[in-house]
Amino acid sequence: MKLLEEKILKEGTVLDGNILKVASFLNQKLDVDFIGKMGSEIADIYRNDNVTKILTIETSGIAIAFAAAQKIGCPVVFAKKHRTTNINGDVYSASAFSFTHQLNYNIIVPTEFLDKNDRIVIVDDFLANGNALDGLIEIVNKSGATLVGCTCAIEKGFQHGGDKLRDKGIRIESLAIIEKMSPEGITFRCN
Amino acid sequence: MKLLEEKILKEGTVLDGNILKVASFLNQKLDVDFIGKMGSEIADIYRNDNVTKILTIETSGIAIAFAAAQKIGCPVVFAKKHRTTNINGDVYSASAFSFTHQLNYNIIVPTEFLDKNDRIVIVDDFLANGNALDGLIEIVNKSGATLVGCTCAIEKGFQHGGDKLRDKGIRIESLAIIEKMSPEGITFRCN
Repeated sequence: MKLLEEKILKEGTVLDGNILKVASFLNQKLDVDFIGKMGSEIADIYRNDNVTKILTIETSGIAIAFAAAQKIGCPVVFAKKHRTTNINGDVYSASAFSFTHQLNYNIIVPTEFLDKNDRIVIVDDFLANGNALDGLIEIVNKSGATLVGCTCAIEKGFQHGGDKLRDKGIRIESLAIIEKMSPEGITFRCN
Repeated sequence: MKLLEEKILKEGTVLDGNILKVASFLNQKLDVDFIGKMGSEIADIYRNDNVTKILTIETSGIAIAFAAAQKIGCPVVFAKKHRTTNINGDVYSASAFSFTHQLNYNIIVPTEFLDKNDRIVIVDDFLANGNALDGLIEIVNKSGATLVGCTCAIEKGFQHGGDKLRDKGIRIESLAIIEKMSPEGITFRCN
């Protein structure tokens, strides 16, 4: 998505430790109009796939997932990272590692919100090592639903999580793939 | 908001410990169309107030805040509950207690995303004891911005957090106010 690449170049900052800061439009301040455009792009990618639900994970995936679901006309389900007091009953769970928080956690979705008739697109903000996607894919598989594909806004291609999943035959359609980045500059993978 | 009261009566479940479970449309599965209607209602409440930003807090406030911001035509800023590796630089911070998680945490907004010219509406999913709002209001005050008002989707009127804030002169416009609830039924406050 050319517009996203331009936005990353204009507003993104590369920090130490392979961190791309895009807090000005995606992670902590939400550019609602721009995220709406990302939602339209995601709806367009899956326009022939009869998607019934978007699955994402708290926190930063929620706005993009919401915008995509508005265009597709389906609900969003989001996985939580902790079991909280307002989740009762049965859950699908999987283990995932957070690159941002540098810790392992359980991700949880109540079983009532996914079923075998669902056709799911997973949406998230970043794809780096693929740990969050691994967990979300495990949850889709446990539910018996069909995984249509996964779209992350920004894939860090140099961390190879996306390519590992592609090698397994999973459809990964990132909106922008960064091939190289450093404080001096960002290079995108050519389509 | 009559539609929200009806939705709560239809889909909400009262659990032990004064927990209202509305995970089927607001907390873990997002009814995107319905949340869009809540966004329109919020935009209507503040239509003459020249709102420049919506402030919310991760996680469950984000979708409602996003929908309201779409209708108002402004960005969303959300407070995070932990300092993470992709936040650098100066932050406004405040302490808040999570009723859902039963713990204290720091909430943080980078100073670059709020300034004294902003006219802020705070949006969240629940208002119970008002602890999250207290923290968000403290952050708005620290930034020097103007607090226009606060809208939570569901106020638990019997926990009095909203009324305490109203008594301080803060504009609190909840979309639905629960006066009483138990597993046997839910009663709303009359407008």
